[in-house]
Amino acid sequence: MDDDLRREHIERQNDPIRVLALSDGVFAIILTLLVLEIRVPELSGDQGLGDALREIRPSFVAFLISFVVVANAWARHRDLFALIRRTDRVVIWLNILYMLPLALLPFGSSLLARYDHDAVALELYGLILIAIALTRLAIWAYVTARPDLLYVPVEPRSRWNRAAIVTIPTVAFAVAIALADKAPTVSLAIYALTPLIYFVAITVARNKAAPGSAEQNLT
Amino acid sequence: MDDDLRREHIERQNDPIRVLALSDGVFAIILTLLVLEIRVPELSGDQGLGDALREIRPSFVAFLISFVVVANAWARHRDLFALIRRTDRVVIWLNILYMLPLALLPFGSSLLARYDHDAVALELYGLILIAIALTRLAIWAYVTARPDLLYVPVEPRSRWNRAAIVTIPTVAFAVAIALADKAPTVSLAIYALTPLIYFVAITVARNKAAPGSAEQNLT
Amino acid sequence: MDDDLRREHIERQNDPIRVLALSDGVFAIILTLLVLEIRVPELSGDQGLGDALREIRPSFVAFLISFVVVANAWARHRDLFALIRRTDRVVIWLNILYMLPLALLPFGSSLLARYDHDAVALELYGLILIAIALTRLAIWAYVTARPDLLYVPVEPRSRWNRAAIVTIPTVAFAVAIALADKAPTVSLAIYALTPLIYFVAITVARNKAAPGSAEQNLT
Amino acid sequence: MDDDLRREHIERQNDPIRVLALSDGVFAIILTLLVLEIRVPELSGDQGLGDALREIRPSFVAFLISFVVVANAWARHRDLFALIRRTDRVVIWLNILYMLPLALLPFGSSLLARYDHDAVALELYGLILIAIALTRLAIWAYVTARPDLLYVPVEPRSRWNRAAIVTIPTVAFAVAIALADKAPTVSLAIYALTPLIYFVAITVARNKAAPGSAEQNLT
Repeated sequence: MDDDLRREHIERQNDPIRVLALSDGVFAIILTLLVLEIRVPELSGDQGLGDALREIRPSFVAFLISFVVVANAWARHRDLFALIRRTDRVVIWLNILYMLPLALLPFGSSLLARYDHDAVALELYGLILIAIALTRLAIWAYVTARPDLLYVPVEPRSRWNRAAIVTIPTVAFAVAIALADKAPTVSLAIYALTPLIYFVAITVARNKAAPGSAEQNLT
Repeated sequence: MDDDLRREHIERQNDPIRVLALSDGVFAIILTLLVLEIRVPELSGDQGLGDALREIRPSFVAFLISFVVVANAWARHRDLFALIRRTDRVVIWLNILYMLPLALLPFGSSLLARYDHDAVALELYGLILIAIALTRLAIWAYVTARPDLLYVPVEPRSRWNRAAIVTIPTVAFAVAIALADKAPTVSLAIYALTPLIYFVAITVARNKAAPGSAEQNLT
Repeated sequence: MDDDLRREHIERQNDPIRVLALSDGVFAIILTLLVLEIRVPELSGDQGLGDALREIRPSFVAFLISFVVVANAWARHRDLFALIRRTDRVVIWLNILYMLPLALLPFGSSLLARYDHDAVALELYGLILIAIALTRLAIWAYVTARPDLLYVPVEPRSRWNRAAIVTIPTVAFAVAIALADKAPTVSLAIYALTPLIYFVAITVARNKAAPGSAEQNLT
Repeated sequence: MDDDLRREHIERQNDPIRVLALSDGVFAIILTLLVLEIRVPELSGDQGLGDALREIRPSFVAFLISFVVVANAWARHRDLFALIRRTDRVVIWLNILYMLPLALLPFGSSLLARYDHDAVALELYGLILIAIALTRLAIWAYVTARPDLLYVPVEPRSRWNRAAIVTIPTVAFAVAIALADKAPTVSLAIYALTPLIYFVAITVARNKAAPGSAEQNLT
């Protein structure tokens, strides 16, 4: 009885449940806060509401891009933690580190909505996206090297494949940052197409994956 | 032991639990954010607070309509996912697609609060409501065609009945959009009565339903 | 196997889990949003920050009162749902009805922060508090009349006792509303002391309660 | 059967689950709200966006400090509740008391972002941090004196060690408050270094801890 409780305590100490509760809360709030950057316009003179809404089109674009970015980040986070049976101190702090650029995204998105062709806004947005990708990669690298934290061990090949999947969008973001000054529209288009890039990378990985390997279960 | 963990991993990969955590978070935040569109009025001259509040009555109307719309959407979402035992990639992305118009609703509601007789505001609000209804219908159509995702298979007749239930309010919204320009008050009234429309449609479906069919359990 | 899944489906349809997830989300967001009504003051002339903060003291008072009101409402909601084993259609909609005045509270609180001696603000705040108390009483009255929804049946005497507990603060709120015009400070004091009123009422009920009765477990 | 349900009811009445749901919700919302204090700057004249962002650097500093403070508070709260098997009335109200300074933190943080060298802003921030530390210490002191609330009893020595761990940052905050007027930069630096202080204190405690003692499991 006493030992049962002790075991249960240790289990709770390692249980990912509160890590996921906090993370899902953060994801849900960000998904919902993004809309606040679309301001109800004040009509001036004889301007119609339709015209006024067309004027704030960059707000809708920034909302849509950021919504898809966050939804995609959540789907990746869910895939990752579906592998993780136990968390330790490092996983918890890496996950907090991961939530830092995520929490900054609404600011980056507002900046993009207001200054959608400004190089600084585009660069900052790209840096946030890279930070989200790399901190999640850090969690992946850490846990897959520790099979006791996982439900099933991940093959070395799968570890490298997943790292490669993250590389593709990261390089794309770096290109977008490099182009922010000269070709802001291209830069914005890259951010908009990110989920598509992920989608292609994941579909390729899934199809090439050995049966039963970790890639097969990607969302 | 090893096989147990593998099974548990696959179960977690398919478990709707995080999909519901994210969705309930989004629903809760939207329900609570709606009140932010009711601004504390600044009194001018010798105006009383009662008069000032009467002036922003459209804000209260928009809040009330949107609150009921979101609560109703949540009740429908809950009914739908009470059937779903496992999620796959498509369910997850359809659910994200469903949350997109939902996340836009607070903006549509603010627009309605500020310009409650403007055709553009009324049309946009109607389009958001239609998008919420149709994306949820898409989840319903997808999962009911795949009995392995469900607790119990859904009869073809039930599938059509539920589609019919969604048709009624969708048509009502389309009418409201068509009337937005000529009869904005009627249009607003239709949005306000939506939950009642759903309620009638569901009660009829429930009463006509065969014992044990999916309709009987609608909230 | 098929029957197991059917049973599990029915269980999920009646499971209070998502009702609680939504409610706890709403409670958490309101508790956290309340602070937004305390605005960072802009210093004018050679005014110090300390003076500026003293000027917005009503904001702190409104925050504190509303925080305790919402925390108390959550504790009551938790007590109530600790009794409830299954939800039906009516419980779900009554709970949504309960969340409506709750969601309005941040607006009432902002109004009180800005116009802390205005009768209209004080009356509206009191009406919201009464609506929260009465809608929760409606859930209590409904479920305790249906033992199949409960873990353990509630004695008729307990049913009346709990109704009586709700009556005390409701009468206090009505008095506060009646005094809003003539004695706004007394009215505000009553709102501030509400949790204390609840606390006394509950402690009395707990001490007089028969062993094993529902009152003994009140938080 | 009847007894089973009664037991289940008592279990639910004592179950920490909703306490954690509410707390995690509050933590998630605060982590995400903090970014709202970084305002998108309006460019004046021929000012570039880069310059404008450099001007609001204190907002970024306040965001970063507060994010780490809240994340650290969550990790401590998680460690604490991993010990707690059952909650009673007092734990629930102490936890609400703990959430009060936590909910005030976004205001303290906004104040710091706007007036980062003002003694009053720095003092208020320090007081909030002390209140967070002491209310959590109160929960710790209460539950560790009641082994029936815990999974495993906590040794008297561990009780004192943990109290000592909390003392270190509390003293640091008191020093920061004392220095707020004369050396605001030092004061701010102390707040920024808090998590590091915790980290050192915890690492020391962990390393000196007897095997199987409560300190070993600190995050």
